[in-house]
Amino acid sequence: MSTTRIWGRRPVLEALRARTVTSISIATGREASGALAELLALASEQHVPVLEVSAAKIEEVAPGANTQGIVATVRTLVPVDLEELLDLETSTPAFLVAVDQIQDPQNLGALIRTAEAAGVQGLVLSDRRTSRLSGAVAKASAGALSHLPVAQVTNLVRGLDAARRRGLWTIGLDDSATSSLYDIDLTVPLLLVVGSESDGLRRLTRQHCDYLAKLPMRGEVASLNVSAAGAIAMYEVVRQRMATMGSP
Amino acid sequence: MSTTRIWGRRPVLEALRARTVTSISIATGREASGALAELLALASEQHVPVLEVSAAKIEEVAPGANTQGIVATVRTLVPVDLEELLDLETSTPAFLVAVDQIQDPQNLGALIRTAEAAGVQGLVLSDRRTSRLSGAVAKASAGALSHLPVAQVTNLVRGLDAARRRGLWTIGLDDSATSSLYDIDLTVPLLLVVGSESDGLRRLTRQHCDYLAKLPMRGEVASLNVSAAGAIAMYEVVRQRMATMGSP
Repeated sequence: MSTTRIWGRRPVLEALRARTVTSISIATGREASGALAELLALASEQHVPVLEVSAAKIEEVAPGANTQGIVATVRTLVPVDLEELLDLETSTPAFLVAVDQIQDPQNLGALIRTAEAAGVQGLVLSDRRTSRLSGAVAKASAGALSHLPVAQVTNLVRGLDAARRRGLWTIGLDDSATSSLYDIDLTVPLLLVVGSESDGLRRLTRQHCDYLAKLPMRGEVASLNVSAAGAIAMYEVVRQRMATMGSP
Repeated sequence: MSTTRIWGRRPVLEALRARTVTSISIATGREASGALAELLALASEQHVPVLEVSAAKIEEVAPGANTQGIVATVRTLVPVDLEELLDLETSTPAFLVAVDQIQDPQNLGALIRTAEAAGVQGLVLSDRRTSRLSGAVAKASAGALSHLPVAQVTNLVRGLDAARRRGLWTIGLDDSATSSLYDIDLTVPLLLVVGSESDGLRRLTRQHCDYLAKLPMRGEVASLNVSAAGAIAMYEVVRQRMATMGSP
């Protein structure tokens, strides 16, 4: 079993809820009220050891990070197999998100947080040149990473083809697309593909998408941040499914 | 005239396009290709002086920031008067966004970038406890800040009332709302109100909104980042207006 360190009250609380925490360290002298009290009660219930250590010790684990005086060791999210994700039995049509080469932990964490809130059933990450699922990603996801199954694939194009063979439509977000996202039926089983901060989708990735979709741009600065574009697209899926099926 | 410093190629390029740059410093030894070449050509066209300085000098201006070896002095965005914003003649129904107490420059910058892309006509900022329009905000906005009129108000509630008197509907994004954003008509002239990272809208702000709207939450972690929620809401305005009017 491999482990990793996460920090911040919210990520630790969410990891406890997901039952992946193996130990917690908190800085001495913190008042155990509010969120911290809830967290400690849950840790005690699950027999997770809690150590009081110096603030300097906490800083050592996550230098410069806003730890809020708490770090935890968690069992690493065991990346699931893509086939496992595709096999998931869900009450609604499949809704997966693939992330290709997003390097900024903030952006990846933000996408994970939104995906979890939108009811996305699993995430597909390309191995190469995509940010690791680090403590910084967990923090930026506000703990959502603990609740979302993630598959890592070496070859995203093959992953897209596997999804298509299983009846999912692959829909790539791409500035240069001719279709508007709003003109595409998103109530079908689907895999939404989001590309890198600077270059969008790679050529081969684009070629293995059933549809390419863009968002309308009205301003002088013709681009959206990748986590904003992803959020808008994921919630358009939610909206269309609520409108036609009553729930996403 | 007051000035401020901004940094990074994209923000400086966008500020040049908006004709607010008074001088530029670049680190010696940078190859002037791509975006940098475009930027230097534009600076020359506008007779903006460009100084070559040491990398250490650049670092001094924006310690720890990812300056990409370029800083510029710009005329501060002169905050417009709220009345001016409300007077704007536009070909489409009014679409303004008010930001209440957002303290993180990243979040504020991200909201500004999305607002500009969504065709928002102006931003209303509450004075107190909202991040200043700093270089960090300009950078996070990818330069969009140079293109969006901003009004700062001391009393947001009075600002909301002024907007309502002028025929705008004030619509607050609020987790505790009973209505879904998707059930609200967003084709009317409107002011969308977005609250702080941690606490959402203040009680008084809520009371002066005509509608409160929430986004559906499907996961275990029941919240969205404020810039993601704002992006989803702004683009729902775009979508509804495209669907009923052909353009937002």
